[in-house]
Amino acid sequence: MTLSRPITPAASALRDKFREVRATSLALAAPLSAEDQCIQSMPDASPTKWHLAHTTWFFETVLLQPHATGYMPFDVRFHYLFNSYYEALGPRHPRPQRGLLTRPSVHEVHAYRRHVDDAVVALLEEGAFDWAAVEPIVTLGLNHEQQHQELLLTDILHALSCNPLLPAYKPASGPALRLATVAPAMRWIEQAGGVVEVGFAEHAGQPAFCFDSETPRHRALVQPHAMADRLVNCGDYAQFIADGGYQRPELWLSDGWAAVQANGWRHPAYWLAPDDPRLGFGLQTQGAASWHVFGLHGVRPMEADAPVSQLSFYEAAAYAEWAGARLPTEFEWEAACNAPGITQMTGHVWQWTRSSYDPYPGFRPMPGIAAEYNGKFMVGQLVLRGGSVATPEGHTRPSYRNFFPPAARWQFSGLRLAKDL
Amino acid sequence: MTLSRPITPAASALRDKFREVRATSLALAAPLSAEDQCIQSMPDASPTKWHLAHTTWFFETVLLQPHATGYMPFDVRFHYLFNSYYEALGPRHPRPQRGLLTRPSVHEVHAYRRHVDDAVVALLEEGAFDWAAVEPIVTLGLNHEQQHQELLLTDILHALSCNPLLPAYKPASGPALRLATVAPAMRWIEQAGGVVEVGFAEHAGQPAFCFDSETPRHRALVQPHAMADRLVNCGDYAQFIADGGYQRPELWLSDGWAAVQANGWRHPAYWLAPDDPRLGFGLQTQGAASWHVFGLHGVRPMEADAPVSQLSFYEAAAYAEWAGARLPTEFEWEAACNAPGITQMTGHVWQWTRSSYDPYPGFRPMPGIAAEYNGKFMVGQLVLRGGSVATPEGHTRPSYRNFFPPAARWQFSGLRLAKDL
Amino acid sequence: MTLSRPITPAASALRDKFREVRATSLALAAPLSAEDQCIQSMPDASPTKWHLAHTTWFFETVLLQPHATGYMPFDVRFHYLFNSYYEALGPRHPRPQRGLLTRPSVHEVHAYRRHVDDAVVALLEEGAFDWAAVEPIVTLGLNHEQQHQELLLTDILHALSCNPLLPAYKPASGPALRLATVAPAMRWIEQAGGVVEVGFAEHAGQPAFCFDSETPRHRALVQPHAMADRLVNCGDYAQFIADGGYQRPELWLSDGWAAVQANGWRHPAYWLAPDDPRLGFGLQTQGAASWHVFGLHGVRPMEADAPVSQLSFYEAAAYAEWAGARLPTEFEWEAACNAPGITQMTGHVWQWTRSSYDPYPGFRPMPGIAAEYNGKFMVGQLVLRGGSVATPEGHTRPSYRNFFPPAARWQFSGLRLAKDL
Amino acid sequence: MTLSRPITPAASALRDKFREVRATSLALAAPLSAEDQCIQSMPDASPTKWHLAHTTWFFETVLLQPHATGYMPFDVRFHYLFNSYYEALGPRHPRPQRGLLTRPSVHEVHAYRRHVDDAVVALLEEGAFDWAAVEPIVTLGLNHEQQHQELLLTDILHALSCNPLLPAYKPASGPALRLATVAPAMRWIEQAGGVVEVGFAEHAGQPAFCFDSETPRHRALVQPHAMADRLVNCGDYAQFIADGGYQRPELWLSDGWAAVQANGWRHPAYWLAPDDPRLGFGLQTQGAASWHVFGLHGVRPMEADAPVSQLSFYEAAAYAEWAGARLPTEFEWEAACNAPGITQMTGHVWQWTRSSYDPYPGFRPMPGIAAEYNGKFMVGQLVLRGGSVATPEGHTRPSYRNFFPPAARWQFSGLRLAKDL
Repeated sequence: MTLSRPITPAASALRDKFREVRATSLALAAPLSAEDQCIQSMPDASPTKWHLAHTTWFFETVLLQPHATGYMPFDVRFHYLFNSYYEALGPRHPRPQRGLLTRPSVHEVHAYRRHVDDAVVALLEEGAFDWAAVEPIVTLGLNHEQQHQELLLTDILHALSCNPLLPAYKPASGPALRLATVAPAMRWIEQAGGVVEVGFAEHAGQPAFCFDSETPRHRALVQPHAMADRLVNCGDYAQFIADGGYQRPELWLSDGWAAVQANGWRHPAYWLAPDDPRLGFGLQTQGAASWHVFGLHGVRPMEADAPVSQLSFYEAAAYAEWAGARLPTEFEWEAACNAPGITQMTGHVWQWTRSSYDPYPGFRPMPGIAAEYNGKFMVGQLVLRGGSVATPEGHTRPSYRNFFPPAARWQFSGLRLAKDL
Repeated sequence: MTLSRPITPAASALRDKFREVRATSLALAAPLSAEDQCIQSMPDASPTKWHLAHTTWFFETVLLQPHATGYMPFDVRFHYLFNSYYEALGPRHPRPQRGLLTRPSVHEVHAYRRHVDDAVVALLEEGAFDWAAVEPIVTLGLNHEQQHQELLLTDILHALSCNPLLPAYKPASGPALRLATVAPAMRWIEQAGGVVEVGFAEHAGQPAFCFDSETPRHRALVQPHAMADRLVNCGDYAQFIADGGYQRPELWLSDGWAAVQANGWRHPAYWLAPDDPRLGFGLQTQGAASWHVFGLHGVRPMEADAPVSQLSFYEAAAYAEWAGARLPTEFEWEAACNAPGITQMTGHVWQWTRSSYDPYPGFRPMPGIAAEYNGKFMVGQLVLRGGSVATPEGHTRPSYRNFFPPAARWQFSGLRLAKDL
Repeated sequence: MTLSRPITPAASALRDKFREVRATSLALAAPLSAEDQCIQSMPDASPTKWHLAHTTWFFETVLLQPHATGYMPFDVRFHYLFNSYYEALGPRHPRPQRGLLTRPSVHEVHAYRRHVDDAVVALLEEGAFDWAAVEPIVTLGLNHEQQHQELLLTDILHALSCNPLLPAYKPASGPALRLATVAPAMRWIEQAGGVVEVGFAEHAGQPAFCFDSETPRHRALVQPHAMADRLVNCGDYAQFIADGGYQRPELWLSDGWAAVQANGWRHPAYWLAPDDPRLGFGLQTQGAASWHVFGLHGVRPMEADAPVSQLSFYEAAAYAEWAGARLPTEFEWEAACNAPGITQMTGHVWQWTRSSYDPYPGFRPMPGIAAEYNGKFMVGQLVLRGGSVATPEGHTRPSYRNFFPPAARWQFSGLRLAKDL
Repeated sequence: MTLSRPITPAASALRDKFREVRATSLALAAPLSAEDQCIQSMPDASPTKWHLAHTTWFFETVLLQPHATGYMPFDVRFHYLFNSYYEALGPRHPRPQRGLLTRPSVHEVHAYRRHVDDAVVALLEEGAFDWAAVEPIVTLGLNHEQQHQELLLTDILHALSCNPLLPAYKPASGPALRLATVAPAMRWIEQAGGVVEVGFAEHAGQPAFCFDSETPRHRALVQPHAMADRLVNCGDYAQFIADGGYQRPELWLSDGWAAVQANGWRHPAYWLAPDDPRLGFGLQTQGAASWHVFGLHGVRPMEADAPVSQLSFYEAAAYAEWAGARLPTEFEWEAACNAPGITQMTGHVWQWTRSSYDPYPGFRPMPGIAAEYNGKFMVGQLVLRGGSVATPEGHTRPSYRNFFPPAARWQFSGLRLAKDL
């Protein structure tokens, strides 16, 4: 038996980070009942409980099993239940049936988390491990968990939106203000373009982690253009609706128009029209003579200067067409990220770009199981840039490439305009 | 303010019956977690919580609102959430989305039940009501609730069957015996046929309630035939499987063969083949060299002389064809119900008959809201007779017509053979 | 080499009947182009060319191959292409893809027919065959072909109805009269009921052929009732529409109401509302201020006293409910078939009954391949009685049981009312 | 009445080109029967007759109606029947139902073509028109018709492939040679990359026409890479299959693997495995111990050095992954188009690139109705470059951007490998 070595400062910091991220997931689930945490409202979304278990499975499978000597799995059946899509890791429970897993209970999943947390912390504290191998896995696992934290919020919001009672995830601390102020006019900020460097770059004092899809850093040519200084807001978008935006095929991509027709879209996913029966139903409002928006705080009057959210790419592109503009490319966005005068680049909504999620020149997936993390999804998806209110602090960065299919509209996803010069 | 009159013996008995039936529903739900009670595993099934709430809604809407002066609804929104299919009672929550109702919680549904129970008991005890109007509604509501008690069991069993862990609804008190005994051979009991009376008849000392579909009582002609003295059991059915029953189109109705092909049926819904991976998975068994069956007590070795269950009509008809026999008609079944030598007529499985669910001559639906109870389903369904292990005590009777579409196989449904003479 | 024997009168008559029925099929196809004869407008319908080939395949496979010594098949691949649903006769071309068979061409199918016709006639004329075996097959084949003659018409009518130009199968010889006359009021004819004989009976001077589904002849009990003296006509049905028949769920069976909602039914399948754009489109009419009906003669003004047709069972049942009546059972219909005062029992439209297509007591399928003819469809279907304008002369009889699923509405199917006394 | 002016040489050349292209469409349809020309084998494909009519409709609607004074439409109803997807031009016949249009007949469509051809030629010969307006429309119409000529071939090939007889579009003049020769090994040609000009450029002596999607010409950065000197051929691809390519998820994009599973893909769309029953069925081959391929000449033995075709993007990408390479980007392809040593860039198969069909910087759709030509499809599609055996002579060019969704595999679509340096 060996004496354990004292923990290094780097390992200590990693352990603390681990504890913090793991605690955040539980905190996000805390306002939800066991029933809330169990259901799945559509195949694209997952139950809260599943998010809690799957992120734990990731540490167990990718970190503990290969690297923690003598680790005993909590329950070998969970390897089948909580794999998401890793073909290399064997068969798995079908995605559309995640909501049927009433067992294990949320309490058992909490026990599973504690079991794995204890083993990870013990591994990091014990010290007798290969730092070069372990640190990247832990960091990847934490970034992975942060992605699921955002999905946990967007998925439960979708589930709650399917309930005619429209319950709030977390009641607001104060009343929503019905703002009389006018949003500042959007301004165009000219960008010179030229050869720019895009993709992840390691800087002193910056986070050292990125996903493989952000690499390799490379040069790209960007044309001169103008970028909007702010996001499109709800007041802007309400004008698009009022101008018949959802009834004019000439504004839409062909697939987008088909989606409008097939699904009866008339406004963003979580907007309630003034005559929505659920407004009276839930007695949530008085004098519902205007748009309302369902969100994490429940149903509240639409705020004209709040960024519009829960848009599909199709809606974002149609709005841009209506506005006589276009969506920025992902490289225009990245190049303008720190440009003077540009605001709201992160922390509000993810911003649809006019760029398909294609691999960068020279792209190679991460080695090992993480090879299935990004590359295999690089078809049929659009890039979103920025970060939203639901994105964990410190998780995103200018080179970050989020992606969703063009019809997805349960994310905090909006847009910023661009135009040619 | 009026003095309440003393409760009559009839009202007292009805109140006690009401309390007993209502308590049974809660007792059936008791082994289930809040998560278990929330989910819906297919559009045909409903969540446990929904059954608890819907049966309560029935009393609130049909009994209390019209007949209990000053009754205050528990929550008016529940009228939308918990209506099942009564067009006359307004719009309702879509059936396939019942599993998304995490709110109200199971605790709130319990409170809803108490609120309505108190009001019903108060109405019955208070005495100032129209007995001729109220008694039939209470009795109908109780029979309705008993039907849902059975569905509560079959629906949760289906939900649990979708979980790869195959959890037990209620663990068995003792181990399942692997029986070495041989089931007694089936015997044919000859029936003379002729003109018989079928449909509900009120007898002294018999229950006075029936559904409209059992009426009017009328005469029918039955041909001479033989009826099996017992149900087809699992051992019998295993021989059908072993003889290639699921691979021989000539045994099947055309729609049945299409269902076999489309769904990959190879055995009854809840049977596990000897090589089923879930047998090792759950460690539920040792030496799984034979069929196992999932049921309310979880996974247990197939018992050869237990009645085969969870069969579709198609499978029942194919088995009968294979056995050189046929299914009985519903009138043959009813006529033979008390014939000497015939066993297992109720309490084991519902028995598919070779009769479509057509209206009886002179059939008229019940008046009022109950008009939507049976008549509007009289197309595309087959009649089952008898009653199952899941049927509440005293709920069924010889004239009782249960019905399901021919592909349904999540009920406790099996068969008995008949043949022409 | 043997001398051929002189043909017997019975064989001669059968040969003549064979030639006549076969010629009728070609005559029915004659107004159609090769393109018309090739297409399939829905999985339930078949191309004209396929009907011509399939009926030929039946004679080749069931008659010539087993009974005509030395018969050489026209093309062995046709056994795969033109089998309809006979599992015992091997694999077959998928039903929904019959419209993709541009080859063989209609000319090749004509050659196929001649090849088989010659061989059948030669067999019948040659005389050295087993009459007891051959005659029933030829007769069955001719009745089979007559059934397909009717389907040929209803299927091509459906195909033409899908063309916005609404072309006529065969232009009418004269203009449709816009009748000012009022249809005679419907009268109720009382029927005493009692024990009746139903099913096929051989009588001197009557056709000796029937399908197995009409047997065995047996006694049934019929309650006293009244039967309408005539069919429901278009004028009657227009009142049902005008009275909101398609908007009132209480009139409909549950599945029927779901079909109305899912398919947007607002009138019978081939009716054109006064504002139908195709009325102006095709310039077929002047002053289209009223209902029009598409039929074998194209689009013509609705005639109030013509029997309503192209109804589903659901619509027939809803109409009867609206009229305060019901559909007759199949035994009521059969018993009333020759009753005094009852008109329009055949030759106009098939009449939906309130009877599911269940087997008769003691029913056994025909032996051999014909076993798959009727019995395997005895679930999920409703019985229609009578015969339509498209039914070949002499093909139907009082015991004839036609059947279709309840949502089918591309047949010449209507209704007659009945009611309890 | 004005005297007609003598036709200019430019107008004369355009008229001759018009006649030539229009004649080619008819020549392509000539080997097909009226039945062949009528059917539609899937929603993505169109009937031959529809292609003939739709290209005619385009000239009638976009050229003649606005520009030919006094033009009388052939049949106003055709505007509804033969519009493809132009929202601005009003409602249209649903795409999946094009195969139901047996009327107008192919003869009427020929008459329609003659009517429009005469009017176009008269317009061009008469001379009193606005050349600057008319010439671009005629040229666009001809390029449009050439695109449909290719689709006519790929669509009818798909339709014939659905017939179990696998008839040939046009029998080959000579027997397919079973080649003993070995295909030359693929060689890598290094490309330096750097800033390249991409998009359409007008050169003296080059065709002046391009589609809007090829514009504006602009600079792009291309990384150093190597490009295969030839296409992947059938022999190469057979090795991928033999190596389990269709059973190894790690080679596939996530959506691609899902398509493999859902559709049971095991080889390219028109390959027949050695044990395919249709090989014996049609007697097309002797000793079918190897792969066969269905094509315009019917079923023929697979030729190892013929380019592999009828691949989806998913299959192309999986093959490249298996080969340790990748697909080229569309700009790499365009830059290498005339590079020394690179062969088979056009005339064999369209080549899938690793580029999504995104708009070029500064892209604006063509004005007028042509605005709906390309831009509205710029999402969810992949770019193919080159040209195939089915592409009309002179129709394609290096900047040409063909596009299809990633699962499409009824085109003459294959691949060329690239790799990073």
